[in-house]
Amino acid sequence: MGETPERKKIVIDTDPGIDDALAIFVALNSPEIEVVGLTTIYGNVYTSLATRNALHLLEVAGRNDIPVAEGSHVTITNGTKLRIADFVHGADGLGNQNFPSPQGAKIDQSATDFLIHLANLYPGEITILALGPLTNLAMAIQQDPEFPRKIRQIVLLGGAFSVNGNVNPAAEANIFGDPDAADIVFTSGSDILAVGINVTHQVVLTEDHLNQLAQSKGKFAQYACKILGVYFAYHHDAYSMRGVYLHDPTALLAAVDPSLLTYTEGVVRVQTGGITRGLTLFDNCKKRYGEMNEWFDKPKVKVAITVDAPAIVKLVMDRLMG
Amino acid sequence: MGETPERKKIVIDTDPGIDDALAIFVALNSPEIEVVGLTTIYGNVYTSLATRNALHLLEVAGRNDIPVAEGSHVTITNGTKLRIADFVHGADGLGNQNFPSPQGAKIDQSATDFLIHLANLYPGEITILALGPLTNLAMAIQQDPEFPRKIRQIVLLGGAFSVNGNVNPAAEANIFGDPDAADIVFTSGSDILAVGINVTHQVVLTEDHLNQLAQSKGKFAQYACKILGVYFAYHHDAYSMRGVYLHDPTALLAAVDPSLLTYTEGVVRVQTGGITRGLTLFDNCKKRYGEMNEWFDKPKVKVAITVDAPAIVKLVMDRLMG
Repeated sequence: MGETPERKKIVIDTDPGIDDALAIFVALNSPEIEVVGLTTIYGNVYTSLATRNALHLLEVAGRNDIPVAEGSHVTITNGTKLRIADFVHGADGLGNQNFPSPQGAKIDQSATDFLIHLANLYPGEITILALGPLTNLAMAIQQDPEFPRKIRQIVLLGGAFSVNGNVNPAAEANIFGDPDAADIVFTSGSDILAVGINVTHQVVLTEDHLNQLAQSKGKFAQYACKILGVYFAYHHDAYSMRGVYLHDPTALLAAVDPSLLTYTEGVVRVQTGGITRGLTLFDNCKKRYGEMNEWFDKPKVKVAITVDAPAIVKLVMDRLMG
Repeated sequence: MGETPERKKIVIDTDPGIDDALAIFVALNSPEIEVVGLTTIYGNVYTSLATRNALHLLEVAGRNDIPVAEGSHVTITNGTKLRIADFVHGADGLGNQNFPSPQGAKIDQSATDFLIHLANLYPGEITILALGPLTNLAMAIQQDPEFPRKIRQIVLLGGAFSVNGNVNPAAEANIFGDPDAADIVFTSGSDILAVGINVTHQVVLTEDHLNQLAQSKGKFAQYACKILGVYFAYHHDAYSMRGVYLHDPTALLAAVDPSLLTYTEGVVRVQTGGITRGLTLFDNCKKRYGEMNEWFDKPKVKVAITVDAPAIVKLVMDRLMG
């Protein structure tokens, strides 16, 4: 008696965000997974706008059935001025396109309560795809110490491993957004796969790809073309590139099919103050240190090292146009 | 009329230390350079013992003519408990060999005053080879703001660039020894070549080399064999290696002949607090950041990336046996 392969249940914690929008669309066209909810967070935009955009994107996709739970409006210590990347994604987070207000509404549960609810409802089955600062996840871990073991995996877009950051030379934007929360998540004992900019900077959508999307009749492809202008302009300005990094779609596809990348395992801690605030420091656990240190005896996580970039780009293109 | 090539004038700032001893001996047998003085610092041993060992090593070499100036006994902020690596080098810093007390004496000038004196005496000619924490150099920079431009170059053994440290996953021992001083030196505007453990861990003296040294009649080779036992034992214990890293001799030979390694250029800042205290964070200056950061507009330094390890080991062997 054959079993039907279960689709992997994924919650997307997101701050849409242009590449978040692409990741959400690719997720909704990925038969291997079931998107069981979106939770929202500040980052590319403030949390309220992230919620609005999440609802809007689900309506574009005709998927108002998927619940949206609003996340934290502040960092976990509530002590930090938020860094909002509207200069990357436009003031509305979606390329300044004046999209209409969504008709739907967020659910009553907070993101944290919703995540804990799902973890209890589907023990060992929930994969959380974290595309923004990790505040909601850290709050769930603080609220329910068993949460890290109740979920299947956390795949997070964050960190800069052995490369410079994108906020400053030390820090990547999502980790910089809430370093204290990130350190809680990295040391929580969950099965964690971190996809950093050392990997996502290898995955570039070019102008040729954009032209192909423009030829497509698919609604996701057409929508993508509208919002990608601002994102291309930022990359040209900041990196002198004629292309854009597919950060969030890469993390999404890593959750869908881990064989698209390779990873190493070790302990990650996050520096929470000083000039390297937001730095992700990976211990490969190969050296014996004479003295105790802050990495000692902490749980290992997976850190992505290489990626099949052409395969990722092809999947993104196929699923946006499909 | 031909000119005699001038020998490069080098001051060695040192905390001997087994590999310091090797570096000093190799320096004294290097015709390309003139060792114009030793200055001492804590690190492998306390500063007083470093001074004693420096005088002792010069007497072994028959070079009591070279002045020894004693350096700082405390970090530049005088706020940190010293970390002394006697577990690597033995309680006496020289492999627990009960060597006799030196006959000579340190000069009256402090290390800092002596460094400034030499910089004024030989403007643009002094290369400082820094083999320990950077307190003396930072004090010279604070005392004489023109000091960084009066010297020719600083070649320093320090930092862990894109690799884990050796004190803990974040920090290398010399930088960890005085992170505040290191940050002053790295941002001083001097011509700086940093040789980190990412490079020196490629340069290994094996048991075969040790056996060759034991066959040699050279006094440096014979002395080296006496002190290397403790160092081999530490490496076997800590790294499961049958060999030892030639940290300090590699930095010395980089000062003698820079073509033995390749380097990249960028800005280095040092994290001075938190779990990554002592981390050296290199900015390759290839990205345009939207916001100001602590690396912006700081002077670039050279950071060693690759090394001709066989050539270094051969030079060390030849000059210890020569």
